[in-house]
Amino acid sequence: MKKALIFGMGGFVGKYMADELMQSGYEVYACSRFDKHDNVYDGWYNCDLNNSEQVKNVIAEVGPTHIINLAGQSNVGISWRIPKLTIETNVCGAINIIEAVHECDLDSSILMIGSSEEYDASDKALSENSKINASNPYGISKMMLGLFCEIYRKRYGLKLHYVRTFNHTGIGQNDNFVIPSWCKQVASITKSGKPGCMYVGNLDIVRDFSNVKDIVRAYRMIIESKDCSITYNVGSGNQVSLKEILNHVVSLSDQQISVQIDSKLLRPIENPYICCDSSLIRDRLGWKPQYNIFETVEEIYQYYMNKH
Amino acid sequence: MKKALIFGMGGFVGKYMADELMQSGYEVYACSRFDKHDNVYDGWYNCDLNNSEQVKNVIAEVGPTHIINLAGQSNVGISWRIPKLTIETNVCGAINIIEAVHECDLDSSILMIGSSEEYDASDKALSENSKINASNPYGISKMMLGLFCEIYRKRYGLKLHYVRTFNHTGIGQNDNFVIPSWCKQVASITKSGKPGCMYVGNLDIVRDFSNVKDIVRAYRMIIESKDCSITYNVGSGNQVSLKEILNHVVSLSDQQISVQIDSKLLRPIENPYICCDSSLIRDRLGWKPQYNIFETVEEIYQYYMNKH
Repeated sequence: MKKALIFGMGGFVGKYMADELMQSGYEVYACSRFDKHDNVYDGWYNCDLNNSEQVKNVIAEVGPTHIINLAGQSNVGISWRIPKLTIETNVCGAINIIEAVHECDLDSSILMIGSSEEYDASDKALSENSKINASNPYGISKMMLGLFCEIYRKRYGLKLHYVRTFNHTGIGQNDNFVIPSWCKQVASITKSGKPGCMYVGNLDIVRDFSNVKDIVRAYRMIIESKDCSITYNVGSGNQVSLKEILNHVVSLSDQQISVQIDSKLLRPIENPYICCDSSLIRDRLGWKPQYNIFETVEEIYQYYMNKH
Repeated sequence: MKKALIFGMGGFVGKYMADELMQSGYEVYACSRFDKHDNVYDGWYNCDLNNSEQVKNVIAEVGPTHIINLAGQSNVGISWRIPKLTIETNVCGAINIIEAVHECDLDSSILMIGSSEEYDASDKALSENSKINASNPYGISKMMLGLFCEIYRKRYGLKLHYVRTFNHTGIGQNDNFVIPSWCKQVASITKSGKPGCMYVGNLDIVRDFSNVKDIVRAYRMIIESKDCSITYNVGSGNQVSLKEILNHVVSLSDQQISVQIDSKLLRPIENPYICCDSSLIRDRLGWKPQYNIFETVEEIYQYYMNKH
């Protein structure tokens, strides 16, 4: 029996990951700092990733064949305000999982999630061989996690997979991320029935946005793959500027919408261009995206239109 | 007036750093987790680097022109046992200093200490352009510190210097480090007046050992230098195998000494060769070592011979 334990079920990606795994025949055990919020899973554990005893107890009790760690502080902007918490959760918390699997002497496959923010600024699509050199605390925390995975894999021979994920979104993502923020603001203006104003950060930057459902399918394929020494990039390969996304969101409303730059949303150092070369995972694992980002944006907008 | 604040005065290097600075006309303020142990300094503060409030209060009160951070978990072997504490102290603690200087709006020059353990394994002497790729938790923590220095320097325009230091030793270094450990064991056998046995780890590895007095002089020269964007390597440039060091220590005793490998002293992953190319600091700042490592070993041995 395939038993998956997911850390970070209180976050955005957890529910999607669980759905993906359940559809593939896994028993799913969920782990979160937060109290149980539904009972569709085979187990729900209240567990703080930063508490090594709690982490070890859950892993020992479940005895998972697969572990996916989605817990972490994943917002680049927030990482400038709370760098230390970003490091503690993203690095030290992940180490708690790795050490627990080793101490419990389990054969679990483990997936740890890195980020495109680890790569040095480049005007070309980023492949797995591109230069690593993060420019913000979030990116540094993920770089460090990747290095820890490497040395722990070598030291203990663990089945420790690592993936660098590019931007992704979907219904349920926190509205301090750009796409939900805009969809929410525009839906609010539409529902008000009057013209309105919305606040945005830097519109010139270009990113590679995926639908979260494509991302979690890649995660499942990676953790099921045999060679855990390969770090894959996961991203659609489609570049889009935030301005294009904004224009699309605004076009969904029948109201007049003006746009203002909010200096609080501008980051001190920001890569102008981040795009994914995902040839490796396409070639090796046969993964490819099934969703379009503009349709995804429409889904999120509709979610906020229907929300009371 | 030049006012230096030294964090980590409870450790090995602190006293040497303070002596170097006092001889160069600095007022010296000392900071340590531990209680005051002498009163030769202009001030002594009991302060935990991991407590951001305490760090900020000390920095605000002293208003230092120069800050040297010597606090940290600096033992590679121990970093495998307590990786999380190594990260918290070496990275998060250092961030507390940087953020305090920024929040207090001070113009202090700051020196943060990195390590040769950040570099990828190489059979050549390591220059500042050599590839960074740590293979143990200690090295990863220092890599991360270096990256944080870079992004904080860019973000806030702080005078934040970074240096990568190679192995160094001297009287007062903790005997869980190799040279003091051996000097202490051999001195103990000598004083017993009988043949004895000592325990060692891997003897084949080659390192670049300096006398700590050379290292702190380099630190003073670096923190006084104008361009803080240059990361210097500091090391003697002289390679020596641990076997040569061991033979020298053993030769200082008049007793018969047998040597046993202790598997607890073998590390899971260890670079066989680490040597420093210190051309840059020699050329730019005129630094060069004044002490020989074999004489330094003799000094440490004599210290243990005289100790009761």
